[in-house]
Amino acid sequence: MTSSKDSALKERAARVIPGGMYGHQSVTRLPDGFPQFFSRAEGAYLWDADGNRLLDFMCAYGPQLFGYGNPAIDSAYVDQLAIGDVMTGPSHLMVDLAEALVSMISHADWAMFCKNGTDANTIALMIARAHTRRTGVVRTRGAYHGAAPWSNPRAGGVTRADQADQHLCDYNDVGSLEAAVAAAGDNLAVIFATPFKHDVFVDQAAPTKAFATRARELADETGALLVVDDVRAGFRIARDCSWSIVGVEPDLSCWGKCIANGHPLSALVGSDEARGGAEAIFTTGSYWFAGAAMAASLATLAMIRSTNYLERIEGLGNRLRIGLQERSAAHGFRLRQSGPPQMPLVLFEDDADMRLGYFWSSQMVSRGVYVHPWHNMFLSAAMNEADIDAALDAADASFIALSLAAPRLGLLEKVAKGLV
Amino acid sequence: MTSSKDSALKERAARVIPGGMYGHQSVTRLPDGFPQFFSRAEGAYLWDADGNRLLDFMCAYGPQLFGYGNPAIDSAYVDQLAIGDVMTGPSHLMVDLAEALVSMISHADWAMFCKNGTDANTIALMIARAHTRRTGVVRTRGAYHGAAPWSNPRAGGVTRADQADQHLCDYNDVGSLEAAVAAAGDNLAVIFATPFKHDVFVDQAAPTKAFATRARELADETGALLVVDDVRAGFRIARDCSWSIVGVEPDLSCWGKCIANGHPLSALVGSDEARGGAEAIFTTGSYWFAGAAMAASLATLAMIRSTNYLERIEGLGNRLRIGLQERSAAHGFRLRQSGPPQMPLVLFEDDADMRLGYFWSSQMVSRGVYVHPWHNMFLSAAMNEADIDAALDAADASFIALSLAAPRLGLLEKVAKGLV
Repeated sequence: MTSSKDSALKERAARVIPGGMYGHQSVTRLPDGFPQFFSRAEGAYLWDADGNRLLDFMCAYGPQLFGYGNPAIDSAYVDQLAIGDVMTGPSHLMVDLAEALVSMISHADWAMFCKNGTDANTIALMIARAHTRRTGVVRTRGAYHGAAPWSNPRAGGVTRADQADQHLCDYNDVGSLEAAVAAAGDNLAVIFATPFKHDVFVDQAAPTKAFATRARELADETGALLVVDDVRAGFRIARDCSWSIVGVEPDLSCWGKCIANGHPLSALVGSDEARGGAEAIFTTGSYWFAGAAMAASLATLAMIRSTNYLERIEGLGNRLRIGLQERSAAHGFRLRQSGPPQMPLVLFEDDADMRLGYFWSSQMVSRGVYVHPWHNMFLSAAMNEADIDAALDAADASFIALSLAAPRLGLLEKVAKGLV
Repeated sequence: MTSSKDSALKERAARVIPGGMYGHQSVTRLPDGFPQFFSRAEGAYLWDADGNRLLDFMCAYGPQLFGYGNPAIDSAYVDQLAIGDVMTGPSHLMVDLAEALVSMISHADWAMFCKNGTDANTIALMIARAHTRRTGVVRTRGAYHGAAPWSNPRAGGVTRADQADQHLCDYNDVGSLEAAVAAAGDNLAVIFATPFKHDVFVDQAAPTKAFATRARELADETGALLVVDDVRAGFRIARDCSWSIVGVEPDLSCWGKCIANGHPLSALVGSDEARGGAEAIFTTGSYWFAGAAMAASLATLAMIRSTNYLERIEGLGNRLRIGLQERSAAHGFRLRQSGPPQMPLVLFEDDADMRLGYFWSSQMVSRGVYVHPWHNMFLSAAMNEADIDAALDAADASFIALSLAAPRLGLLEKVAKGLV
């Protein structure tokens, strides 16, 4: 696999972009061989800067649901662009889209639009604080709710005041949730939860009904608002808020990524209970009311309502999961596969230093299949069974390569323990 | 002017959007007759939901510089959309665009991209705090740097901790700047300034060389970083950072609005001094690295470099300013026109309750000219002299209407004082 153009771009980028690249799409923490730059995308496929084709299990880290360059969705965008995109006020599309989301999301009585998933989470925080006139936050350790100072997962440039009054609990641990709520005392404004545990580097976990139900009860008992951050998982788990699968309705839920199939749009939806808080805050953005992304979202939502995309990506995800289990076992590897099959995380057992996962994922990329060693992946409705089978063939070859390379990789200890 | 479709949309919006509309494009604080919804935009014109055509002096609150639906810029967007927009990593366009900004903005050695002007300002704050390992902020009273909790202009949902360690000074007041810096003590991380005073409701003011120079000196003396928030004014004052007109280079400057002629993109650029801080923070967004808006920005920057758009909007702004002065004086009104002519603010003398400004701007809208009573406006390079002359004719008729309506408006007191 050639990479000379990628290398040349990296050299240029190192001069004019801090660190050469920043944020979740930086390959700094990925194995060698992961391309940084891409030249083209179509359907389920990406082409890197050197023209190598990759079946993409990241879907742009979530936004792509119905295929890159989906004709119906992109046509809706382009058509509206010719009519009017950013203007001095919104178009009717903002009302149409709010109505569409309210009709699809059980707990929603209203919607607000913004550009980043971080925006939606930050607005939720502000609404809860305005609603309760309190400041306390309960959220789960290790969950990502965006890169704002209040939610930033790293320390650089973040102050203690930015994250004041926050109390952490562990996902699905009712006792720790109760303790965090107790710690917030009479100052609790909001409980944040992701729809399932989809933290990086560790096994994913479905929400227990007990945890979600208790979060709802504690919000009700304290007068705090309950927020489900559905930015990453929204519409990949259900055609409703993801906690509909455990029968719990939040006051607010945050949406983004795939709601316009990758066109720049995020949203916050809420119940009438939270409407007053929403009316009490000031929030805005230069491009938040632009019509083209809203037209694309309406086209995306129509496909969500009218196609079997959800059953399809779940089925393809199961085919991948079962196939990986068979292939890895045949070569003596033990995988830990977690999360909903349509948002899979694939880790190796006894791989705390990630040497197995890094080598294997790097091999997959070199064979034209973009998998991620430590972040959950995403299935796309543009994939088909032949794509999954091709990925499994690449997986087979990558497990063989891993077996052969084990001594060279310093994995002899693991081999001796029978792990490789 | 009919408004039945606008009214119907407002009724629907009131049910599914908090307050019916939120943010800077809400007409809640505008006079009656300002349409909330728009159906179309082309060149310098908007059409409201009822089909009334409006010459638009707001330019979407800044993003539109080369005309709505500019063919060259929108083609660049659409062409890149077919190649690849949001992907699992950036395209070469991110490097091309960073190089273009670095080549155009004197103080810039690197660039980062995001979606909101608020993002760029928040990243600047985080970088300064990472760079200095301090938390203090000095900024000017009444300036807008976005709607994040740390910068929010209103109290709803904002905590004291969100705005901890902030010290306010008055624009162009060197003494108050020095006092604010002194108040921050050895904890100063950053000094924020807009390129000129463009706060709402009050006269705009150009930066004095003394104020800008002293801000640079104080940043250097204390080791803090100096940020110019050029989101609103960038490339409407200069083809460089706006403080190039007073010969002062900041460490960081924030860009957005018109850098892609309304396509969703903002940017932070910085000097090598600030590069380490930029590398020390984590920031990202789902759509920040998407290519289509970057392609549109490259097309926009090419027009900024190669056309006389800047001299053109300044000339049109002067034609408007002189014409309004003549027309208003002819009818006995005294205007306070401030700001660069290409970003004009038009207030009436002795109009603290805005009754004159509200009535006159409402009259202008009814005559097909969208002017704003208390926010700076924007000239567009898609305007021509005939457009300005048509606006002046509408202004003339609106001054006459204001004279006739003065008694009914309860303006008799002002008339008695010879103000009307």
